[in-house]
Amino acid sequence: MGDRICGPEIERLIQLLARLPGLGPRSARRAALHLIRKREELFGPLAEAMRVARDTIVSCSVCGNVDSCDPCTICRDERRDPSTLIVVETVGDLWALERSGAVKGRYHVLGGVLSPLDGVGPKDLNISSLIERVAAGGISEVVLAVNATVDGQTTAHYVTDLISHLNVRTTRLAHGVPVGGELDYLDEGTLAAALRARTDF
Amino acid sequence: MGDRICGPEIERLIQLLARLPGLGPRSARRAALHLIRKREELFGPLAEAMRVARDTIVSCSVCGNVDSCDPCTICRDERRDPSTLIVVETVGDLWALERSGAVKGRYHVLGGVLSPLDGVGPKDLNISSLIERVAAGGISEVVLAVNATVDGQTTAHYVTDLISHLNVRTTRLAHGVPVGGELDYLDEGTLAAALRARTDF
Repeated sequence: MGDRICGPEIERLIQLLARLPGLGPRSARRAALHLIRKREELFGPLAEAMRVARDTIVSCSVCGNVDSCDPCTICRDERRDPSTLIVVETVGDLWALERSGAVKGRYHVLGGVLSPLDGVGPKDLNISSLIERVAAGGISEVVLAVNATVDGQTTAHYVTDLISHLNVRTTRLAHGVPVGGELDYLDEGTLAAALRARTDF
Repeated sequence: MGDRICGPEIERLIQLLARLPGLGPRSARRAALHLIRKREELFGPLAEAMRVARDTIVSCSVCGNVDSCDPCTICRDERRDPSTLIVVETVGDLWALERSGAVKGRYHVLGGVLSPLDGVGPKDLNISSLIERVAAGGISEVVLAVNATVDGQTTAHYVTDLISHLNVRTTRLAHGVPVGGELDYLDEGTLAAALRARTDF
């Protein structure tokens, strides 16, 4: 679509929308038209929300979460147990764990995983600040809630080595059958892990 | 996700993003995180592009297209044949026809189709302005490029009746086999239409 059929403002909006995950060129066009059609109900509020969010959202200097205040809402929440620290790869993982409602402790966001092939080393992650937090005391358990991938597990081992001399318990998430999952569709590794970690009924 | 884990600014951004077509609550969260991660490259430019687009984009008073100028770029383009008028349902259809590169005339966007069940009558569409444009003269052919749906065809018949007393040729898009399509997957109606309208090889 050249500049000859619509103004550069629409073109630019479509190009930028197409860079969002989950939107391609075609769905970005559809989204732009939807915005233009719903100027008052959606376009105005979304443009304003974007401006506000861009100007206010910061990374928490304690845990690496994103929020409009620093330290973030979770780090400020005094009802949370400060003795349990859940280490996650990304803010998305933090949100996922929060949705589960099972976490009563605080978080530390690494900002990724060690990945020599992609050139990601310990210096690129929030690992030194994690060690400092644990060394400062008051933490009795570190839960390594990283993804069950090779890179995630490598990172977990690396972190465990670094905090092994500090007097904290290090745990990881359980492997097993997903709730609602069917055995027939599970891989052998997960089934073997679930069998090894079987519990009394 | 309650207010307790992140500020209201992020919540609001996610809620509004989730109202875009093609994005649900989960992908809106992913999009918001992507924006926050790419603050300089994407978040800033997109917020700015949204503000500019919201403030500049208007509906063309001649044809109903959306553009940052009125009359729109297409209505101003003097290289386009003013004697052919392509009637489309939505701006999205106009863009689709423009991408085909086969249109040399000008457009008229109805803004929808007649749909008694949804309470859409002739007054809700840009039909009276279409009649005025045709009655003003200088137009020799009206191409009814509406969707091949029941509502689209009803609208086409309605428009045809209204302009039948004016001395213009009224045409519609051909029905037939889509280019690259396989006969085996086509419905009987399309195949029958393609057979009836067969041309010399």
